[in-house]
Amino acid sequence: MKFPAAVPVTSIATLIGAELHGNKDAMVTGINEIHKVEKGDLVFVDHPKYYNKCITSDASFIIIDQLTDFPENKCLFVVDQPFEAYLKIVRNYRPFEPSTQNISLSAAIGADTYIAPNAFIGNHVIIGSNCIIHPNVTILDHCIIGNNVIIQSGTVIGSDAFYYNTKKNRDVWYKKMESCGRVVLHDFVEIGAGCTIDRGVTHDTVIGQGTKMDNMVHIGHDVHVGKNCLFAAQVGIAGATVIEDEVVIWGQAGLNKTITIGKGAVIMAQSGVVSSLEGGKVYMGYPAEDAMTKRRELVWIKRIPEIWKKLN
Amino acid sequence: MKFPAAVPVTSIATLIGAELHGNKDAMVTGINEIHKVEKGDLVFVDHPKYYNKCITSDASFIIIDQLTDFPENKCLFVVDQPFEAYLKIVRNYRPFEPSTQNISLSAAIGADTYIAPNAFIGNHVIIGSNCIIHPNVTILDHCIIGNNVIIQSGTVIGSDAFYYNTKKNRDVWYKKMESCGRVVLHDFVEIGAGCTIDRGVTHDTVIGQGTKMDNMVHIGHDVHVGKNCLFAAQVGIAGATVIEDEVVIWGQAGLNKTITIGKGAVIMAQSGVVSSLEGGKVYMGYPAEDAMTKRRELVWIKRIPEIWKKLN
Amino acid sequence: MKFPAAVPVTSIATLIGAELHGNKDAMVTGINEIHKVEKGDLVFVDHPKYYNKCITSDASFIIIDQLTDFPENKCLFVVDQPFEAYLKIVRNYRPFEPSTQNISLSAAIGADTYIAPNAFIGNHVIIGSNCIIHPNVTILDHCIIGNNVIIQSGTVIGSDAFYYNTKKNRDVWYKKMESCGRVVLHDFVEIGAGCTIDRGVTHDTVIGQGTKMDNMVHIGHDVHVGKNCLFAAQVGIAGATVIEDEVVIWGQAGLNKTITIGKGAVIMAQSGVVSSLEGGKVYMGYPAEDAMTKRRELVWIKRIPEIWKKLN
Repeated sequence: MKFPAAVPVTSIATLIGAELHGNKDAMVTGINEIHKVEKGDLVFVDHPKYYNKCITSDASFIIIDQLTDFPENKCLFVVDQPFEAYLKIVRNYRPFEPSTQNISLSAAIGADTYIAPNAFIGNHVIIGSNCIIHPNVTILDHCIIGNNVIIQSGTVIGSDAFYYNTKKNRDVWYKKMESCGRVVLHDFVEIGAGCTIDRGVTHDTVIGQGTKMDNMVHIGHDVHVGKNCLFAAQVGIAGATVIEDEVVIWGQAGLNKTITIGKGAVIMAQSGVVSSLEGGKVYMGYPAEDAMTKRRELVWIKRIPEIWKKLN
Repeated sequence: MKFPAAVPVTSIATLIGAELHGNKDAMVTGINEIHKVEKGDLVFVDHPKYYNKCITSDASFIIIDQLTDFPENKCLFVVDQPFEAYLKIVRNYRPFEPSTQNISLSAAIGADTYIAPNAFIGNHVIIGSNCIIHPNVTILDHCIIGNNVIIQSGTVIGSDAFYYNTKKNRDVWYKKMESCGRVVLHDFVEIGAGCTIDRGVTHDTVIGQGTKMDNMVHIGHDVHVGKNCLFAAQVGIAGATVIEDEVVIWGQAGLNKTITIGKGAVIMAQSGVVSSLEGGKVYMGYPAEDAMTKRRELVWIKRIPEIWKKLN
Repeated sequence: MKFPAAVPVTSIATLIGAELHGNKDAMVTGINEIHKVEKGDLVFVDHPKYYNKCITSDASFIIIDQLTDFPENKCLFVVDQPFEAYLKIVRNYRPFEPSTQNISLSAAIGADTYIAPNAFIGNHVIIGSNCIIHPNVTILDHCIIGNNVIIQSGTVIGSDAFYYNTKKNRDVWYKKMESCGRVVLHDFVEIGAGCTIDRGVTHDTVIGQGTKMDNMVHIGHDVHVGKNCLFAAQVGIAGATVIEDEVVIWGQAGLNKTITIGKGAVIMAQSGVVSSLEGGKVYMGYPAEDAMTKRRELVWIKRIPEIWKKLN
């Protein structure tokens, strides 16, 4: 998330009650996770295991739970509880805004776009021209929909990331990491009925131009899908996975988080994709492998009784 | 889709800018896909591979991209782009009608039928008597619901087919084949919460009398389900598949498109059904096979280490 | 279901037209299924196979289709069709109440709880304080939501059980066993978008404190989920299954009905859990087994060609 305007480091330090180390005149442009961070961004870290990764990342500003060495061009905000500091910043710069009507007055909707009765359009949503938003669709705050997009009934765009801060020494183990990212659907995207597309935690979930999804497809937070992809019904893609252009995924297949599927790959129905896959090939099974190899395996399994017989 | 009334071939030719060959006095009664076509219907074909199938089908009228031989009792409409001609006809005879309220004034709703708040009933929908339509259900234009039907919350009846015209030499590969078919639910059908049932592309998706579905079941376009079937949660059935009467499908099973499941078949949970199955038997696994065979296979797999040991 | 107040056995006998045997002064406190029954409850039985189980259960009152021996401290209601008698009682003491608006006037909603536009809150629903109910959520009659609960868009709480009385000698095989149970979500529960949680048939479906679910999770009737569990997207849990505390279930896994998953178990993505699992271990595959064993099996399968070669 980028702030509406750059914020002085001293304002952030005051907001979160931090001890500030480094250049007191610097300006913070946004907040991000370590995987998505850019110059000017703020990240947070609360475990020594990740200190080094944060400090050597592109992040200019680091919320951290103890003072440690850091390069001259960065600032450190030292606080007891970095995760709580993160939540304070999100709540301050992207506060939850209750909606009071079906279509927010702060939404911008393009020409010739049809919003059906019972659809919900949240605050600051931008929808392009020539779109069809069917009944009972939910498009939540800050999401961006391109031109010529069709979203079918029951689908939810911009639900919160399934992303928690976990501490097993407290009564409630999982504490919601509030999402301040968005969903961005490019032109000519079509989403079937009953789908859910989560917003990014701090960044965007993106669906590329011309990609089409069937019903009940689940897309996790921070997933990036390329152009001209085709996803059949009941496919699920976990958080932060990258699907390159022209990928076809057949029904009920499931993809692990933070993996990459190469351009033009085809994933057969019900496959379970555990790790990244090279483009231009066909995959099937659990764990998903080259489809030909997997089909041969199924034939080999049928030969076990014959092997047994030969052996005895 | 049948037209509201038969249309002279000359009107169709003018609408789509076609060169007309054959009987100029004939009347067209509807438009259909090659698999569902009846006498009086119009089909379209844009690849020489399918010319013969179209010309020898029951279709009386063929939209085609070049002149070819055809029998005396048919008419040919020659156009550059048959798919575009198809879209023109659908948009003319079944135009998209934006709804302006939750329950369309053109919907017909039977006695003692309860439509909950937040349900959406589209244009020209017909609902029988003694039905319960729960909150946040969406029933889209032209669908037909019988008597004593229950549809639970979040379910979508009549979403568009996932069906595209594909050309990889253009910027947007997949172009929506607009659906003009319907969903027809017969008497005593019950649909769980969060289900999606797509309309037929040009024909109907049909659910037979007394069939019950649990939550999050996905039914693709042009699927025909028989009587007294039982589908557990998260089952998915791809387009144009036929399920005969009294079939039971357990949770999370997935069925391929355009296959047939025989009467009384039982498909175990999480099965992946790739091809047609004979009735009266129990199936499991991927690809789904006779359950007993599959269970034995699982036992054989566990014996491989023993085989290995024996061998060495 | 407990009745609003205890009901004389004679009133019940009159309502269902039963021949009453036993203490005519007894009072009935509720109706329940045989698995959940408590002292003071009424159950029904329509097959001699289950007579003994009913009569020796904690149920004080039994609706039965023929007179049989019974202990002194119980009552028998003899009727021709016990299932129809059950339906009569449910319809009398928990009648279907049509809602006339999005948020029922009989719902009780706590302080600082936000109900978004297009959400539906049914009759007699109780929602605690500091909750967020997102747009297009459906919470049906009598459900109970704790404090600090978040329910994301498109989710349905309290859909009817998928539970039928089956008789294959009638035209409509499956007759709905009307649900009179509830869904109870404890404090700090978070439910993702597009989930469905069915109410209990006569008892409650319960989600324990601090449990978090991702999108499109299906929870069947009478399921009991413990504290601090984590369910990833597209998980499905069939009826009356018990999930103890701190269980983690990854995406697209499916669980059978009436089984128990022990505390702290971890179930890998796409697993199919057929029978009960001990706590504190990791499971995968179909049928779900110890993950290490299953992984080794996958390796063994890859060795079959080598075995074949050795053998020849």
